[in-house]
Amino acid sequence: MIILGVDPGIAIAGWGILEYKNGMCRPLGYGAATTPADMPTEDRLLSLHLAFDDIIKEYKPTEFACEELFWNTNQKTGIYVAEARGVIILTAKRRGLKISEYTPLQVKQSVAGYGRADKKQVITMVTSLLKLPSPPKPDDTADALAVAICHAYSSSSLLSKYYNN
Amino acid sequence: MIILGVDPGIAIAGWGILEYKNGMCRPLGYGAATTPADMPTEDRLLSLHLAFDDIIKEYKPTEFACEELFWNTNQKTGIYVAEARGVIILTAKRRGLKISEYTPLQVKQSVAGYGRADKKQVITMVTSLLKLPSPPKPDDTADALAVAICHAYSSSSLLSKYYNN
Repeated sequence: MIILGVDPGIAIAGWGILEYKNGMCRPLGYGAATTPADMPTEDRLLSLHLAFDDIIKEYKPTEFACEELFWNTNQKTGIYVAEARGVIILTAKRRGLKISEYTPLQVKQSVAGYGRADKKQVITMVTSLLKLPSPPKPDDTADALAVAICHAYSSSSLLSKYYNN
Repeated sequence: MIILGVDPGIAIAGWGILEYKNGMCRPLGYGAATTPADMPTEDRLLSLHLAFDDIIKEYKPTEFACEELFWNTNQKTGIYVAEARGVIILTAKRRGLKISEYTPLQVKQSVAGYGRADKKQVITMVTSLLKLPSPPKPDDTADALAVAICHAYSSSSLLSKYYNN
């Protein structure tokens, strides 16, 4: 199973591709799609769409995972993040990927073992679990890999049983 | 000039196509794309994308206009509206349409002559200006036609001069 994990954003959208086989996660690629702040919103949305379409064509994932969107205090930024999120989900859906969403609690629990893990602990665990040479940069990329790991573990009935007991 | 005006939404997205020529607006088509509440969000987004792609292929507009999004009190609904809005803007941008946004004040001023017009007055003026046989239903369709009218008038230098003086 090949999973595309995404941390959506209008300025920076992190992504990570994992192959999940025999209970093991192997990273195939990861990075971040970025758009400049002075670009018109519609061009930023098109740029994200094309970037994620290319990622999907290159790695051929069949599963898409991202975090549920919770509202932050900056409502203006929140609108743009939600617009970008809609566009990235559409891009995956158009290519036939199965879409899954997880709460931040579920992601932290999967990766760090408990739901109150902080950002630094999540990055450390992602780096360790995937045996990466160094912590993925920017943080959005680490978050994208974390949600992909969460989806891998949730999809495995054996492991989800383990996590529930 | 052929204009696609849109009032974005995840459950109901109003649309209206106007031809603007010699200072006159002529409606070519209008309606609303709808998605059922029990459909998964990613399927609703794909359904809206395909519906607007079909409208653009049928009427071949070159201009796209919608209202700027302002935040409402229901944040959960707001996220879905913004996701749908991002998807519809992307759909227009992929087909090469020029994207324009207007504030609710600008739309009301264009259509009803003053910025504090209520919804009913806007619907009445849209019906009258476009010589429609009856008020367009649902209200989202009337709002979509209103923003298309606003764009037509704003694009005409003569009329925008008139409105600014």
